[in-house]
Parts: sequence; structure tokens; C-alpha cells
Amino acid sequence: MHNDAVYMARAVELAWLGRFTTSPNPNVGCVIVRDGIIVGEGYHQRAGEPHAEVHALRAAGEKARGATAYVTLEPCSHHGRTPPCADALIEAGIARVVAAMQDPNPEVAGRGLYRLQQAGIEVEYGLMMEEAEALNRGFFKRMRTGFPYLQLKMAASLDGKTAMASGESQWITSNEARRDVQAYRAQSCAILSTSETVLTDNPSLNVRWEELGDDVQAVYPKERLRQPLRVILDARNRLTPDLKAFSLPGPILLVRTQKGNEAWSDNVEQLIVPAASGGVDLVVLMMQLGRRQINRVWTEAGATLAGALLTQGLVDELVLYTAPKLLGDDARGLCRLPGIERLADAPRFTFGGVKRVGDDLRLSLFPNSER
Amino acid sequence: MHNDAVYMARAVELAWLGRFTTSPNPNVGCVIVRDGIIVGEGYHQRAGEPHAEVHALRAAGEKARGATAYVTLEPCSHHGRTPPCADALIEAGIARVVAAMQDPNPEVAGRGLYRLQQAGIEVEYGLMMEEAEALNRGFFKRMRTGFPYLQLKMAASLDGKTAMASGESQWITSNEARRDVQAYRAQSCAILSTSETVLTDNPSLNVRWEELGDDVQAVYPKERLRQPLRVILDARNRLTPDLKAFSLPGPILLVRTQKGNEAWSDNVEQLIVPAASGGVDLVVLMMQLGRRQINRVWTEAGATLAGALLTQGLVDELVLYTAPKLLGDDARGLCRLPGIERLADAPRFTFGGVKRVGDDLRLSLFPNSER
Repeated sequence: MHNDAVYMARAVELAWLGRFTTSPNPNVGCVIVRDGIIVGEGYHQRAGEPHAEVHALRAAGEKARGATAYVTLEPCSHHGRTPPCADALIEAGIARVVAAMQDPNPEVAGRGLYRLQQAGIEVEYGLMMEEAEALNRGFFKRMRTGFPYLQLKMAASLDGKTAMASGESQWITSNEARRDVQAYRAQSCAILSTSETVLTDNPSLNVRWEELGDDVQAVYPKERLRQPLRVILDARNRLTPDLKAFSLPGPILLVRTQKGNEAWSDNVEQLIVPAASGGVDLVVLMMQLGRRQINRVWTEAGATLAGALLTQGLVDELVLYTAPKLLGDDARGLCRLPGIERLADAPRFTFGGVKRVGDDLRLSLFPNSER
Repeated sequence: MHNDAVYMARAVELAWLGRFTTSPNPNVGCVIVRDGIIVGEGYHQRAGEPHAEVHALRAAGEKARGATAYVTLEPCSHHGRTPPCADALIEAGIARVVAAMQDPNPEVAGRGLYRLQQAGIEVEYGLMMEEAEALNRGFFKRMRTGFPYLQLKMAASLDGKTAMASGESQWITSNEARRDVQAYRAQSCAILSTSETVLTDNPSLNVRWEELGDDVQAVYPKERLRQPLRVILDARNRLTPDLKAFSLPGPILLVRTQKGNEAWSDNVEQLIVPAASGGVDLVVLMMQLGRRQINRVWTEAGATLAGALLTQGLVDELVLYTAPKLLGDDARGLCRLPGIERLADAPRFTFGGVKRVGDDLRLSLFPNSER
């Protein structure tokens, strides 16, 4: 009798602890159990540092011999910045390995489990696969398709309005919703926005450690703070180095269709992509971001970019903050969808989670593949 | 040691069973307990028939002597269509009465409890008052203010749209949401709509027993089906007797500013109210409905009436069905709020319940009294 699901659930829990720091690597947790006792635990903390299995094996020491290792992702079999975890498990004398899923990384893709099996270790996988998928939606999407996992953040009133007719929009949502957004930014590899948003709101688009909730701060020490890449679309070269966003630390990718001659500081790189329908080619941009190991993109922009991403099928998840207010028909709308004239053509979603955040609701939605 | 809360919870549960049939009376449940055993249970089923206490006393018979009666509302002390329940409890030899709350009905208002106390019965009230309030929001609002409790039903996409630019709107929400609406209609005393809605959609605005869910049908026998009063605003006398709604059984109140000469059938009454800002005076109408013992009004109409009810503070609850779709900025909006130009003036709400209904979400919202 094994309590496999209990130990795997603990491994999943451990894996989540790395969610602010492992990028571009995946979140992985590991639990080592001998005779029903957890003798070692670990999770991957940061790229270049030991993997989850190594942390857990170190904690277990000699007790790893004959034990079972529960790991949320297939152990790696290749030499990266660290030696292969499969070898470490074999050397430690692990008798059985339960992995939640195979690693879709083409450098692993079953080779880790095969190596363990060849060494005489009992191997299983597929336990709590769904929970394991949720740990690394970004990493897995990139490994499988080359594209990052794109989250589109929206915030609106009950009647789908983002600002009054005058443009007044501070604040539709509550303080708590804005703190929640900080936690999403902190878990992303990149934050996507537009020159329009930068010129209108002059936002910083960064992570402010002080504004993260207590629960986030507890697992994300200030000295490990990492600024996501800020990706700003500027098809018509409207942005200038004096704007607030450019003076803050952290890398910026200025996406343009032709290079500008402004004197940008070292943290700003101009990326030239082809033009498409009045802006930059978003598909080419996403491929470029995937090549730069961007797993997860968090989008904060206006109705035009939202509509463009949606109609091009680039959105993997909608994160909609709904404020309990009604602004009326004259106020400004949530997304422009030119060309959608029949109800049958409207983008459809499936509700994922619903959470109360302060006075607001946060709805998570996944696009339906068939329209 | 009394398990008062357990018995009162059961009385509340019983009271809910009457929710489709008691109108214009309140929902009331009663449990009689002697020596820790429930010896009698009852709930009010229909106006003119015995109250909850009488049903429970009949079930208890001689065992009521020395027992405790748990009742969700103060027992009545006046002769209505049935003799006073306070007297029945006294005669049966009940030793203790626990009421969830006083009856705000000015004909009762503490007199029932006083009468019990004078007869030497131990009396308490205030247990599970909130649950008891929820049983009868309509009845209590009318007793306290003379006005009915008004629920405004809305249905929209994530971006607050109710129809495409072309007017196409069938169907934004799912089958399950429409079945849920049937259950709300069935619990209401009146369904409020407009000539605009009737002329555009030609709806029946009635309760169709076949479309109620299994759970509703189980407590609402077909032979007890009761059609809520259909209240249709027709300030410009645009409606004619040939429309579908008028051919269906059940009373209709046609609300106009001056009488028309059409040949209406017997189920249609014209109610003349003063004109106000392009329509009928809604405050006067609500007072009139209150006088006609309408406890609960369920509103299904368009953006104009929704906006008018909201800006005049006549909405007690918003019931919003949110479909997981995006229709885009060209589609039609949820409510017109002329005169609301600053964010600070926008109507604000507090989220009550959130429920998944088929593919959609149903959000229940209560207006904040201070804006």
C-alpha cells in the first residue's frame, strides 16, 4: 500500500514555492519516502542552481537507499548547467521513481525515465498529471510549440467598461486587485504592453516587491527580486527615453518595425519585426520571445491589442478582474474585435477559476479551441 | 443543552419549500421538539391555507404539550384568513417558542411574541435572523417600506454586451441559464418588462413548468402552477392585443400614461400612472405594485429601463448572467446611464453569491447604499 497521491501532492506543493524564481526553467518538486516516512524534500529554486531531486537527495543522505522518489516532472538525463538528475537518483540507490509526467523538453522527452529503468529502478509516470501541467503552463507551451503562454489581463466594470467617456479610469478595480496583478507580473517572464498604454498612463510595468502580498513576500525574498522583460510595442516609434518606464531597472524590448535613433540606455533593446495590419506582426514577435526563453507573457494593454491577440488566437488565458460597478453605455469598452459581426464568430471561453479579490472578482478563462 | 440552531436550520429548510406558492404571504417553517426529538414539522404552503405552526402542531398532536416550537418568523396574533397561530401554540401547551425574528408586518410587529409571553410561554427571538431575512426579502421589504423588492436580471458577455450590432442575441447565455431564469420568475410575484422588449423579442414572460429544473418541479407540483403578474410598461400605447404575451393565461398589467381603446381580453388591466422623463413614473408604479401585495418584482428588460431603475435607486438586487464570450466594442451594451460622467458617480455594488450555471456564471449583487 503506497500513499502515492499524498506524496505527489506534497511534491506539487513544493514545486509551487519556486514560481517566482525558476524562470526560464520549470517549477519542479521532489519528495523522497522510505518506509512511509518522508526522508527528503526539495524544489528547484533558480536556473543554474541544483534541481529539485538534488535538494531532496541531499536532505535524505543515506536514507535515500531503497527509497521512492516522487517528482513532479521526469528527471533530466542531459548535462545542462548541472549534471543529470537521473544519474544522481541512480547513484543514491533510489529503488522506485514516480514522476507526474514526462518532460516535453526535446532534450529529455522520456530519456530520463528510460535511463532510470535501464538502471533497474521501478518507474511510473502519470500520477497527478493535471496538477503537474498547471505548475508549468508557460514552460510546457514553449517546449511543445516554441511559443510562450500568453495571459491577457483585463479589468472592467460589470458592463465591460474600462474607463469613463472622459478617459477617467483610476481606479475601476480595488487595491487588492492591483496587488494581485503584481503577483501575476512577478510570475511572468515578460510583461507585454503598447506605446499607447505607456503614453496614456505612463506606467512602470515592473514588479514592486513592497506591493506584493505577505503570502508572496514569504516565498520570494526581496534580494531575489527579478524584473520580467518589459516588451513594449511601438510600431510608429512614438516612445522617447524620458518616459518613466525606461528609467526603472530591468530589461526592455522595444518592438518596432524600423530602428529609431533615440539615445536609449543599456537596458533597452530595439527589436525589429515586420509590420502587420497597422502594428507589428504579433506572431513573429511571439516566436522571437519563445526563442529568448520567454515561457510566460503577461499582457496589460488596451482594447486594440487585446482584440488583435484574441482574433489571432495568441491568447492562452484571460484573467479578467470584474469590479462591482456599472459605468453605462457611454463609457469605454474592453476590446475591439473588428470583423466579428455574427454571434457564432465571437471568441468563446471556458471558465477556469473564480476568486474574490478585495471587492472584485477575478475570473480566469481559457479560449475554446473550436469556435 | 439545546441544539437550537440545528432545529432552526431545519425550520428554515422547511420554509424554503413554500417559495413557489406562498405569495403574497411569507415563507415560514416550524419544527416542534420534545425531549430532543422532532415531534412535528410544517411549513406554510399557500395563502388561505394553514400557517407553518398549525401544520407542525397537527403533526405533533398530544406530543406538543411541554415542547419547544422553532419558527422562522414570529407567530401571528391577528385573525386573517386563518385564526392566530399564537393562540394555537398556547392551546397546544407549547412551553417554549424560539422565533428567528419579529414579523415586520404592522399587524403583528411583536404582538405575537407578547401574547405568548403573557400566556406563560418562554419566548426568545433572534436566532438565525439573517437566514430568516433571506427567506422573505420581498415580503419584508414591502412590510417595511410599502415597496416591492426589485430584482434586475441582466445577461451579457464578458465585455458587457447583450447583442451584436445587428441585434442578434439568441443566444448569449446557455440553456441552463434560461432554465435558471424560469426558477426566478416562478418565485416572483410580478415580472416587469417593457413594450420595447415585447415588440423586439415577442417573449411570453410567463413560467413554463416544463422548463423548470427537476429540483424545482419536485417541490412545485404542476397543478399548483401560478403565473406571476406580468407588468408591461407601455408609455406610448404601442402594444396591441395580438402579441403572443397577451394570448397566454395569467394576469397582465399594462402600465400606460393614458388609457387606450384596444379590445383587451379579461386578463389584461390598464394601469394609468403619471408620465416621467420619457416613460412612466417608476416610483409611483412601484408604490402601486406594493399596494397590490406584490412582494417581489423580477425585471427582464433592456438597457434603458435598467438604467432608469438603477439611477432612481429602485433596484434591490442585480442578477447578472455572464457568458464566457467576447462580442467586441461594436456590440450592444448592458445599460444606459445618462448623466453618469464621473467614476465616483457610477452605481456600486457588493458581490453576493457567485454560481456556475451551465457554461455561464450567475452573479448576485447588492447595491451599496452610499455611492
